[in-house]
Formats: sequence, C-alpha cells, structure tokens
Amino acid sequence: MSAQEHGLDSSPFRQYLEALREELAAVTAGSVADYIPELARASPATFGIAVATVSGAVYEAGDTRTPFTIQSISKPLTFGLALEDLGERAVRARIGVEPTGEAFNSITLDAAGRPLNPMVNAGAITATSLVKGKGNRSAFQRILDLYSAYAGRPLAVDEATARSESRTGYRNRAIANLLAGAGTLSGDPADVVERYFRQCAVRLDCRDAAIVAATLAGGGINPVTRKSVAGVETVKRVLVVMATCGMYDGAGEWMYTVGLPAKSGVSGTIVAVLPGSLGIAVHSPLLDGHGNSVRGIRACRRLAGDLDLHLIRVDAPPNPVRSSFTAADRRSKRVRSERELAVLERDGKRARVLELQNELSFPAVEVVMREVLDEAHDLAEVVLDLRRVDSVPKTAIRFLAELAVALATRGIATALSGTRAHAEAARAVARRLRTAGAAIDVFGDLDAALEWCEDRVLAAASAAEEPRRIALPDHNLLAGLDEPDVALVRRLLQRRRFPAGAEVLRPGDPGDAVYLVTRGRLSVIAQRPDGAETMVATLVPGMVFGELAFIDRRPHRGLVRADTAVECYVLRRDAVDGLREASPDAQVTLLLNLARQLAARADAMRNELALRT
Amino acid sequence: MSAQEHGLDSSPFRQYLEALREELAAVTAGSVADYIPELARASPATFGIAVATVSGAVYEAGDTRTPFTIQSISKPLTFGLALEDLGERAVRARIGVEPTGEAFNSITLDAAGRPLNPMVNAGAITATSLVKGKGNRSAFQRILDLYSAYAGRPLAVDEATARSESRTGYRNRAIANLLAGAGTLSGDPADVVERYFRQCAVRLDCRDAAIVAATLAGGGINPVTRKSVAGVETVKRVLVVMATCGMYDGAGEWMYTVGLPAKSGVSGTIVAVLPGSLGIAVHSPLLDGHGNSVRGIRACRRLAGDLDLHLIRVDAPPNPVRSSFTAADRRSKRVRSERELAVLERDGKRARVLELQNELSFPAVEVVMREVLDEAHDLAEVVLDLRRVDSVPKTAIRFLAELAVALATRGIATALSGTRAHAEAARAVARRLRTAGAAIDVFGDLDAALEWCEDRVLAAASAAEEPRRIALPDHNLLAGLDEPDVALVRRLLQRRRFPAGAEVLRPGDPGDAVYLVTRGRLSVIAQRPDGAETMVATLVPGMVFGELAFIDRRPHRGLVRADTAVECYVLRRDAVDGLREASPDAQVTLLLNLARQLAARADAMRNELALRT
Repeated sequence: MSAQEHGLDSSPFRQYLEALREELAAVTAGSVADYIPELARASPATFGIAVATVSGAVYEAGDTRTPFTIQSISKPLTFGLALEDLGERAVRARIGVEPTGEAFNSITLDAAGRPLNPMVNAGAITATSLVKGKGNRSAFQRILDLYSAYAGRPLAVDEATARSESRTGYRNRAIANLLAGAGTLSGDPADVVERYFRQCAVRLDCRDAAIVAATLAGGGINPVTRKSVAGVETVKRVLVVMATCGMYDGAGEWMYTVGLPAKSGVSGTIVAVLPGSLGIAVHSPLLDGHGNSVRGIRACRRLAGDLDLHLIRVDAPPNPVRSSFTAADRRSKRVRSERELAVLERDGKRARVLELQNELSFPAVEVVMREVLDEAHDLAEVVLDLRRVDSVPKTAIRFLAELAVALATRGIATALSGTRAHAEAARAVARRLRTAGAAIDVFGDLDAALEWCEDRVLAAASAAEEPRRIALPDHNLLAGLDEPDVALVRRLLQRRRFPAGAEVLRPGDPGDAVYLVTRGRLSVIAQRPDGAETMVATLVPGMVFGELAFIDRRPHRGLVRADTAVECYVLRRDAVDGLREASPDAQVTLLLNLARQLAARADAMRNELALRT
Repeated sequence: MSAQEHGLDSSPFRQYLEALREELAAVTAGSVADYIPELARASPATFGIAVATVSGAVYEAGDTRTPFTIQSISKPLTFGLALEDLGERAVRARIGVEPTGEAFNSITLDAAGRPLNPMVNAGAITATSLVKGKGNRSAFQRILDLYSAYAGRPLAVDEATARSESRTGYRNRAIANLLAGAGTLSGDPADVVERYFRQCAVRLDCRDAAIVAATLAGGGINPVTRKSVAGVETVKRVLVVMATCGMYDGAGEWMYTVGLPAKSGVSGTIVAVLPGSLGIAVHSPLLDGHGNSVRGIRACRRLAGDLDLHLIRVDAPPNPVRSSFTAADRRSKRVRSERELAVLERDGKRARVLELQNELSFPAVEVVMREVLDEAHDLAEVVLDLRRVDSVPKTAIRFLAELAVALATRGIATALSGTRAHAEAARAVARRLRTAGAAIDVFGDLDAALEWCEDRVLAAASAAEEPRRIALPDHNLLAGLDEPDVALVRRLLQRRRFPAGAEVLRPGDPGDAVYLVTRGRLSVIAQRPDGAETMVATLVPGMVFGELAFIDRRPHRGLVRADTAVECYVLRRDAVDGLREASPDAQVTLLLNLARQLAARADAMRNELALRT
C-alpha cells in the first residue's frame, strides 16, 4: 500500500463514509429493477459509496468494485459528445433542455418535434443518433472510448444485458421510430436503438462512476489520468442539464433538498457532482417508484447535508489580493544610497503593488479594479503581480488592459509582474494596450517590477542618476580617520578596475580581503535552493563587499558581478593586521566602521522580515 | 463625489455597462404590459442596467433611478420570509418546488393541493398568506420592511398601481379562492389577495433591485447596509427555486443559456444572482410573449457570456494551503543555541506546519487532511495555522478534530494557531477532542506554535534543557583571548543580576555598553508599526545584546526583558576604549568577535528572507 493510499484509507473522511454506509445499509425499502432478467439478478444487499476529488483522491466504502451496467448515467456523457461533435446549435435544434414533469420513458415531444431534454430516453436516443463514426472508430466505439476516458480505464459491454435490453426494448423502439417520424432522429431508428441498448449496457463499478462524476466536476479533466475528456463549456452544459433535468420528475425537489447536479440509473446508481471539487457515486440496486436508488438518494442527501456540499455557495469568494503595499513599505533587492532611500520613503507611497492570487474571474478582477481606482488620485505607478494567480481568463485580460488604459489616461504607469506562468495572457494584455495607443511593462518577477517602481520614483524626484565616483577619503570605511591615518591606509590599499560583466568574486574564493567600491555598480548574486540565481544586493560607491567572509575567515559564498565599469580598493587581511603596529586607532576605527555597515544591513533586514511576517 | 464613487464612475466596467446599454437600446422588440393602466404608462425607452457586488460597489448605466413596481420579483423575497417564519416543513407542506411547463399565472395544483412552486402566482399568493403580523407590525408592514431591508432604504407602495391591480385582479382572486378551497391558503382569500396586490405594487428602482440581488448573492447580508436580511440556508433555498423555476416556462432554457438564478417581473425587470459575488438588475418595460423584459434577457445573456458568470464553476477551488514548511525550514523567533539549531536542522522535518487560507469548506478540509495524512508516517507534530482562514464552518470543525484524533492515535501531536479570529471554532475543536479522550494545543499566533514545535523536537532529542550558566571565559565575545587578556577584560566588566520580568534595557536608554549573557534567558521585544509588541529574539548564555546601539552610538530601540533570573556582564564603551592602551590585541579580538556575531545574525536573516520571498 503506497503512502498515499494509506493516507486515504486512514482518513477520517473514509471512516465517515464507512459509518454512513453502515447506517444506511439498514434501509431495505425499494426493490430491484426486474424489467430484464440481468438487472433482476443484482443483489439487494450490494451497497457502495465512493467519492472522488478533482485532485485524484478516491474514498470508498462498501461494494465499490461490484460491476453494474451504466444505464441512464450514460445519457449526460453521450449528450456532451454530441455537443462536441456537432456544436451547440445543431444539437439544440433536435433536443430541448426543459425539465419535464414526466418519467424517464416520457414520449412527449415539444412543438418543434424535439424531446424535452437529453435526460429522458427520447432525448438520450436522439443524442446517441447524432454521434457518428470517425476515422476507423465506429459510432459505438467512440461512445465506449468516451466512457472509458471518463472512468480512466477501458470499459466493456455486458453483452447479456445488451441482448436482454434488445429483446424487451419495445418502448425505446417506439420512441426511436416516433423521433424518426418527427425528423428528429439522425440515421436508421433500428440501428440507433441497438447502439443505445449497448451504450446502456457498458459495465463499470461504483469507483469508476465516482471518477466519471469527478471528471465532470473538474471541467472535463479526468482526475486520475489527467487527460481531457470533454471541453469546459460542454461540461458546464452537461451539468446544467443534470441540475435541471437529471433526476426525472423530481428535479426541483432534488435540487431543493440536495442541491447538486446528479444523474440516476436504473441499475441502482446515482452520481452527483460538486463542480470544481468532487464527484459522488452511490450504488445500491433497491429502487423507488421513480427508478431512483433508495439508499442512493438517502446517501446523497446525507453527504450534501453533513458536508455542506451545495451547488449554490454564498460565502464570499477568496480575496484576489494576497497583499498590497507601496514602494515606501518594501524595497527591491537593489541597494540604494541613503539619499535614495529617503526619497523612496517619502515618495514611494505613489507606487502601489498588488500581489494577486487564485482565479482571476470577473468578480475578482472587479475587486482589483476597484482597489486600484479608489486610490488612483494618489498613484503614479501600479504593479499587478500574477505569480500566484491560477489562471488569467479572457475577461481578466480584457479588464486588466482596460484598467491600464484608464490609468494611462491619468498619467499612471502600469506593470505586470510574475508573468512566467502567464506569458500568453501578459502578451494579450500588452497587445490590447498597443491597440489603445498605450503600453504596459511586463516583468518576469516581482523584484524587477519593484526596482522599476523605485527607478521611476527616483527619476521623478530627479534623484536617480548613475552613482558617481567618489574619492577614496570619502569612502564610508574610512570615515572618522584623521588625515595621516587616511594616508596610511591608502598606502595599504590596492586599486583594482573591472570591466562591466566581470565576475569580481566567485563562490569559493578565499575570504582574505574587504573591497571598497569607489566607482560603478556591482550586483551580489546568490543561488536559491532550487538552483536559480537571485540578486540579493546592489553595491555602489561608498559601500564594501567581501566583509562577511573576511570576518568569518571562510571562503566567499556569493557571486559579485560588475554591472558597469567598476573601480574598487582591496584591503587585505595582512594589511589590517599590520595596522595594529602602525596605528591602533586607525585599525579600531576601520573595524568599527565595518561593524556599522553590518549593523545597518542587519537592521534593514530585520525591518524587512517584520514586514513579511 | 467621494474617491470611491469616482473610482466606480471611471471604472472600465462601468464603461462596459454603458456601451452594452447603448448597443441594446437599439433593440425595440416587445411591448409594454397593458393589463393595468399604470403599467401601460411606462416609457418603452426606459432602460437601465445595474450591477451590485457583495462588497457594496454599485455600477449603473442608463435609467437606474426610474421607479417601477416590484411585481413578481417580490415572490422569492416573500417565500424566504415564510420559510424563516414557519420553517421548511410547514412551508413545503403548502408549496412545491417543481418547475412547471406553464405560464406565471398557472392555476395547476399538485396531487397534494399545492401550487407547483413559489414563483408562479399560486405559490406566491400562498407564501404571502403564510406571513403573519408580529408585535405592532402587520403582515403587510413586515413584508414591506423586508423589501426595504433587501433594498437598503425605506420603500413605499405605489397606491395607484395597487388599486389598479385590485380592480382587475380576477384571475389572482380565482387562484386565491382555489387555494383556499384546497386548504392550502392560510387566512381569508380576499384579504390575502389584497395584501398580494400591495406587495406587487411596492416601488423601487433598478439600482435598488441590483442591491436586492446582491443581498441574495451575499447570503442575506445587504452589501450596502451590512445588515442581515435573511439567513444563509433560507437564501440558498430561495436561489435554488429561482434557478429551477425563476423564469417561468423557460427555466431550463434560461439556466442552459444564461446559467444564473434569476427572477423576472412584469414591470420589465429581471434580477439575476451570481451567488457569493454579485447581483444584476435590468429594467426595460418592453416584454416578450412570456412577460419577460426583452432587453433584460439580452442584457443578462451578454453579461453572463462576456464576463463568464455562471452558477456552475468548474475551475479548481483556491488552494486552502497557503504555505507548508517544517521546523527545519523556518524557525520561531526564539533564538536557539548552535547545538539546538543543529538538532532542529536534523529533526525539525518531523514538525509540519500548514498555513491555511480562504474558506474551510469540506473540499478544502479534504485537501488539508490528505496533505497531512500522506506524510503522517514521517511526522511527530502538526500545526494548522488559521490566521488567514475566512471561516471555519461546522464541517471543518468536525474533520479537523477527527484528523487530530487520527494523528493522536499514531502519537502525533496537533496544534492550531492563528486562532484569534476563530476562537469559538478552536474551542469547538478542543471540545470534540476532549470527548474523544485526546487534546489539542491552541496558540494565538503562529510563532508561539513554531516555538512549541521546536520545544517538542528538542525535548525529543533530549536537548531542550533550560540554557545552563556558563563561565565568563567561555563566553563567545571572549573567544580567542589568551589568559592574561581574559583576566584583563574580566576586570573591566561589571556583573549585573536581574530577576525574571525585569526590563533590562528600554527604548531610549543610552547605547553605551554591550551586555554579555552568562545565565538565564531574555527576550528582545520590538514594537510593530501597528503598536503591537513582537518578540524578535531570545538571548541565552554566550550571546550579547545592546551591540547595535553600541556600535551606532545611538539610543536603544528595542526592549530587553528577563524571562528568567538573569546574570550578565556589562562592557562599557570607556572600558573598550581603555583597552586600546592596555592590550590592543584584546580590543581587536573583542571587536572582531562582535562583528562575527553580527555577521552570523545577518546571514541567518538573509536566509530567512530568501525563504519568505
């Protein structure tokens, strides 16, 4: 038994299912279908409950591996196939979607000669007639392929049941002929009805049926095989029809008391679907007068009630804004000068970042638009981070683009970040903006977008010039030294120059010197646990690097790379040691200055950590 | 105009509504209801669309402030009131919930003498008859109070329309008398039908109607007044009936093509509801043959299609696990010794923390149970953090408790944290555990639970003793000093003792000394931006404090408090300065040791930041 199976087996939910099954096994009302001998042979004691989630967990209690024939649970699946083959219009021209007040074998057609819906036999036979062979697969093989894909394993026909249905299926033959007479049926009624009998006789078990239901719950993706079995729009249509017409003459009552789209079959099975979440299957051959499984109905009612499963959920959707902050609250990893930091502190509030999450459905996008527009009069930059967004549907692309246009007309710049998993959506937003004569910046990660905000804030404050060269005596590490000591230290330093792109320090280099930057800009790059490179700091004139390894007497861990042409001075350990003789004062001042830089950095990181907690 | 109103007004969504209205204004099919003069007076040009969200934003386009009478949109509201007054059983004994294939004025009763559903006149009149006066409010005043609460402002009756309905309402009188004859109606049919006429003649506008719909979407909470108008269970029942029976004889078609629970009224209004998200109202008096607003249907179809609004959502629900880590990945703020850190690094993987988020519906709890149980064989502690959870419904309480019991039987301890907003739920979980003879630890914040994990991990490794006293020469700050220098430094140090609870350093105290801890434990406490106190570090023997302020020559910022009786040694700045003469070597070694402690802390914080990014 794998860890996962063990987890499912010991789950309190499986115990709950087990207890529910035991309790309802005491219900012995109803009787086994007897219109054909094969169904009459089912044991009244058989009783299984299975629940499958869209993420592929299957919980089982009781006789979930006992095979039975699919019967009417085939109807929604074949209807979906007809929709995908012929398209909405052609199918709807032949099949209605209105609930009937009538039984499953209703023979009523509407004024246009259409069966009332695809869940009564007339509608189901029409749907079967619309499915045609393709390539080397016959119409029936395609239907069997489809059911197998829904169940996630190859299914087969129970030939005895199919023959038995065929021998006794007078009413269905009558329906097929009436449909042919009304011009609704496609093909020869005798052929179609035989195909329909075989379709109803496909064999599966309760576990399979739960996976079929979970495939519908997951928008057509089989939760076990992860294969796409039907399109999302098709599945929505199938589920609507199950919700309004799935339980024959009791559809209103079912939705009112259970609240889940469902389908029942005369072999004693009910499947029910909580869209987006899970599928339920109950199998017990004892039927009530409508042909629904007695324990099946009871079990579905209990599951829906106990677990609060209902198609209609009125709790608020999850907040699409995971966090909201400004460039004054949180910095990019680029290290800024004191003056720049002061500018960001003051003006960074005008750059607003929203980290978005979950599905960007319209209600979610509405919340985002409102949050941004409510404070638009105070903003100059807006960043929308998509890293934790599950998907960016068409509606979101449209309104994100229109939001950016609305902001652009007020002089507010918009950027998208975290777009690696949503590259196509980001391109679509950018295209829409170009059409509107505007533009949007797109960044793979949030840090780059934060830096973009900061650069714009600093530029707006005329404070974003390239860091200038400083004279060595003005370097922070030499602060507080008197002139003779500056001269002394200067003699101990070696000047080094590096071209843009040079790797100044590599991981593993010995930690035997501190580097004083006097010109240009460098990046400190660390490896993340996943191996990706990440920039953790930028160095500008006045700053030092190499000091952590220097103090700890260990090799360097990070990579320091020159972003521009760089000039720096190298202070070697032996030089620092030598100072002890020449000028103890200078040595202590240097060490205190070094400690001060470390303390400032520790302080900044502590603030950052407090913010992110 | 407030910032918020300005935001709504300039929203791309309002512009979309405006454009949609303009486009559909060109549709002039249909005709104004003329069965009473008051309705016939409505202008065919009137056309408004309003969308209200559950968070209280209202978007309007066109004639959204033109008053009209509520008509059949009253039906679901009064049905809900009857449900709340009498309860489910009593109401359902008199009113069915099956869709009819018939028009709104259907006179059909089922075998039990019940109207088929509450959305046809017969069912609505029955519901009205079930509402009685209470206290000093008559039955009708209570109905009017209810509608006003749904709209969020006091509504009134259009007396001319009420009189007109009364003069011509023969069929409704016939229905009321038939219902009375069947024993279904409560009270005198003449009184009831007059009350029903007045109910239908309550005046509101399109904006009001959108707020009514949004109140249903929000589970009975009016999004503008934030008052509870109806219970969640009632609202679900009302929405189911709207979904299956709201659009009269076209209910199946409506759900199939639009997919939103809705109700139309003969004054030319349609309200539609996306549960959990928003309400839509469209008003245009031009009606089709079924009595539905022509533009209303078109507008709802377009909104549902363009914005992908559908009762059935098959996209995956948001992940309930915001983050998952172990005590080896992330530490509490309690500072641990090197040895303890090594133990946590090695054994911390056995303590698993799941930060949960969003609604803990059953599908969400199933995911949580599975994640925990899948790796249960590797775990000793499990923390479930609820800080970012929206709500903990009954089902979640049940299964969280059963999960904890299942874990307890394997010797795994469970804790809940972040329970401040969910204190009642946490108590309920704890109660259930006590019933099962088990227990659960509950912590207000995650850091306390992390510390609990660490303490248990360390205890299990027999490494969690109270930090022992160390001898001064073994203190980290003195590492590397030779014996004469240790003796020298020892003479410069002053020993201080503090009782448990003492505030050893306060913010603003001068930063003129470093403190060396040799016994006991202290906490470093910082003030967060919101004024709350937060513990940022724990100090044990071998560590120093006060060094940041010491190095920067500025007052202390944090508060240092003794958790236990504490002994420490104070190294004053003048003593450090004095060392320069006595032993420059000792001075440099002390400073390097200080820098080393800072560097280690900076390193740890950088790792922590990388983890939290």
